[in-house]
Amino acid sequence: MNFSFCLPVNLLFGSGVINELGSRAAPYGKKALVVTGRGSARKSGLLDKATGLLQEAGLETRLYDKAEPNPTAPQVYAGAEAAVEFGADMVIGIGGGSIMDAAKCIAFMAKNSGDLMDYIYGRKASPAALPIILVPTTCGTGSEGNGFAVITDPATGDKKSLRGNMLVAKVSIIDPDLMITMPRDVLASVGFDALAHCMESWLSSNGTPVSDMYALEGISLVAETLVPLYRGEGEKAEWEKLTWASTLGGMAIGTAGGIVPHGIEHPVSGLRNVTHGKGLASITPVVFERSISGAPAKFAEISRRLGGRDEKDCVAVIKKLLADIGLAIGLGEQGIKAEDIDWMTENAFKVSPAAIDHHPVKFSREDIKDIYRAAL
Amino acid sequence: MNFSFCLPVNLLFGSGVINELGSRAAPYGKKALVVTGRGSARKSGLLDKATGLLQEAGLETRLYDKAEPNPTAPQVYAGAEAAVEFGADMVIGIGGGSIMDAAKCIAFMAKNSGDLMDYIYGRKASPAALPIILVPTTCGTGSEGNGFAVITDPATGDKKSLRGNMLVAKVSIIDPDLMITMPRDVLASVGFDALAHCMESWLSSNGTPVSDMYALEGISLVAETLVPLYRGEGEKAEWEKLTWASTLGGMAIGTAGGIVPHGIEHPVSGLRNVTHGKGLASITPVVFERSISGAPAKFAEISRRLGGRDEKDCVAVIKKLLADIGLAIGLGEQGIKAEDIDWMTENAFKVSPAAIDHHPVKFSREDIKDIYRAAL
Repeated sequence: MNFSFCLPVNLLFGSGVINELGSRAAPYGKKALVVTGRGSARKSGLLDKATGLLQEAGLETRLYDKAEPNPTAPQVYAGAEAAVEFGADMVIGIGGGSIMDAAKCIAFMAKNSGDLMDYIYGRKASPAALPIILVPTTCGTGSEGNGFAVITDPATGDKKSLRGNMLVAKVSIIDPDLMITMPRDVLASVGFDALAHCMESWLSSNGTPVSDMYALEGISLVAETLVPLYRGEGEKAEWEKLTWASTLGGMAIGTAGGIVPHGIEHPVSGLRNVTHGKGLASITPVVFERSISGAPAKFAEISRRLGGRDEKDCVAVIKKLLADIGLAIGLGEQGIKAEDIDWMTENAFKVSPAAIDHHPVKFSREDIKDIYRAAL
Repeated sequence: MNFSFCLPVNLLFGSGVINELGSRAAPYGKKALVVTGRGSARKSGLLDKATGLLQEAGLETRLYDKAEPNPTAPQVYAGAEAAVEFGADMVIGIGGGSIMDAAKCIAFMAKNSGDLMDYIYGRKASPAALPIILVPTTCGTGSEGNGFAVITDPATGDKKSLRGNMLVAKVSIIDPDLMITMPRDVLASVGFDALAHCMESWLSSNGTPVSDMYALEGISLVAETLVPLYRGEGEKAEWEKLTWASTLGGMAIGTAGGIVPHGIEHPVSGLRNVTHGKGLASITPVVFERSISGAPAKFAEISRRLGGRDEKDCVAVIKKLLADIGLAIGLGEQGIKAEDIDWMTENAFKVSPAAIDHHPVKFSREDIKDIYRAAL
């Protein structure tokens, strides 16, 4: 029982907390670069509301809305340039995981120079970043609860995370009411991502007593809420629980890190711009099926929390859950081809060595190729 | 489900982590004021070891060893003066809860002027403090896991905590091996304090989903380990679990705050220098007996984790545990007299209004007097 724990999150959680955005941002300066995507925050009126709240609190805002799903290093550079040109004191990310991760890296590159990938691969390091404020609009990534930011380098297809406590938001404003307008297919994929974070943290050999608590609680909350919400049967209490599960998953994976499903999904979405949660849905049951022997008691615990009996039916209950939320899908229908497998395998060992290393069983390159094939 | 959570702890936990003291302190400067008591750390050789580790890492150290059980404001002022005179860059507290709390307030008063009680009562505020490093040698207070520091004002008898994230240690070095030499009676009282922190956080109306997780896990770990360790039957794994339970209790109470047992124990130890955990042992069963109706499901959960059945036997299982660790004691045998009750009651409403307010049932002054009488 040797571990360290340092995750300096500052969470403000609950229905209506979005209204505190202005007062929570004001201590960090006068000028805020607001990072968002081209979609939902604008359409739902959230962006206008947020901008209004910031302006009421005396802040000047500038918008950067060129962050996209699976955000890229060039999008980060353009955002950082906008931040510097504006003289931003802080960066506020409003959106799903891609937007929050882009906002984190924009805040980082506004204070650092050179190639972002050098920092991601640990060839360079810096503790400097502009203060970051996050407003999640999906409940999956958990980026509001950690210091991870996943970025894709379009030159190489490498999708990998920058990590550090300089990327932990000064405040995360987590309002479950903002989740309610999510389209059903988005809910399914982000909800499964949240579950994957919790399951992988719990299974990781890098887990700690703290990440274990967060992860197990998160699994139970997803089990209780995701399917009813997908079916349109959930109420406010269910949205609160799923939203909290997602932040818990972010906090758990932010201390334990992921294992093989996340490790080998990143090459998939890095290569073909697949939706991360859908890629995980194809991969996770195949990986788990081949991993039970490495941690039977832990898989049994997952199974019980998802409504199963023991480790033997763990994969079955996960498959059932995926079927219930419309995610019984293969990688093939998401654009992945058999000829991608060699590249994805090599890339997984390049971008995700720690995730592969912390997995309950050791997979060789041939094992990973087999997994990709079975997940097609 | 509306809450906030910000507890920026940095925990290094495990057998042997004490050896990292030097390297973990070095980033915070060159001069360390080491705060300890007159007793165990010196006798056990820990103080020499710690000083050696700090010096090996290039730090100059000065010792302040005048902090006592239930530390007082004048002890803090003297320590802060020593820190300023020495030009300390950091304060390192090595000891039990009293020592750690004194170290925290010394670090605070080294950067602030005036009356400490003004900051404790919220008449003044400051975010400034020297960096704090904590090395707990008892597993009870959990001070290494929060931003609380309880100080007694000898002029008034007020025992009350200074609170704020400036008091959260930059790093807490939590080595379960340091606990093993604790005398049995110290183990009993600190162990029950740890349990009290967990139970009170869980019962508090100010609790959050985060403090609930910490608290429930802590209750289970104390239930599993305290009695065996008291009986000399525990091994390394039990010491690890109880030590972690104590830090969890500190983190839980650091976000939820205490309720009536802590609230009305402080006047007891403020007035007569009673050992905090022993005072709690006298008070807690009496308070809980009169509180079950305010939160039956929560008391049932405590009971089950302590080996009971439901809320009806919760007080009985706590009394059994206290008897098993030699703490079936009244306040009378600790020097409290019937004529102290009026003062203690008034003082409880002065120093602990929030604790009384967050309790599952509302107690009047007459109720509190009755409780003290029954606890004599």
